Amino acid sequence: MKYCGKIIVVLKEGVFDPQGVTICNALHTLGYGEVVGVKTGKFFEVMVEVESLELARKRIQEMCDQLLANPVIERYSFEVEVGK
Amino acid sequence: MKYCGKIIVVLKEGVFDPQGVTICNALHTLGYGEVVGVKTGKFFEVMVEVESLELARKRIQEMCDQLLANPVIERYSFEVEVGK
Repeated sequence: MKYCGKIIVVLKEGVFDPQGVTICNALHTLGYGEVVGVKTGKFFEVMVEVESLELARKRIQEMCDQLLANPVIERYSFEVEVGK
Repeated sequence: MKYCGKIIVVLKEGVFDPQGVTICNALHTLGYGEVVGVKTGKFFEVMVEVESLELARKRIQEMCDQLLANPVIERYSFEVEVGK
């Protein structure tokens, strides 16, 4: 069965996000003065072929811990759906 | 009132995603043979201070069209919540 994991990785609170600051400034310059802050992150869609939703969740969490997120400065969240 | 827009930007179908291919190969090397595909994208959290949820949605959509996503090769989706 195919499952699709949607993973969002963001910097932990307190870690400086220069890309977010740059985008915030750019939005101000473009006239979006209502913007009070921007955080950036990464998004991954991982398709896996395993027996169960539970196993898909477990394996995707392992992938996040091992490769997709840097636990020192990043935190992640994900959800798993039955794949397309 | 503060609102928080959570935006995901991904490459359109058919646009080559070399970063996704690299991550897929890396996961295979690490023993995750069940992975059949990886897509990569960007994530933005934009905090805005406006009068209504509707206005927040409208302005965030404009920001996506104008700066955050490249409409030629990317598509985006977002949701807006009452901010922290």
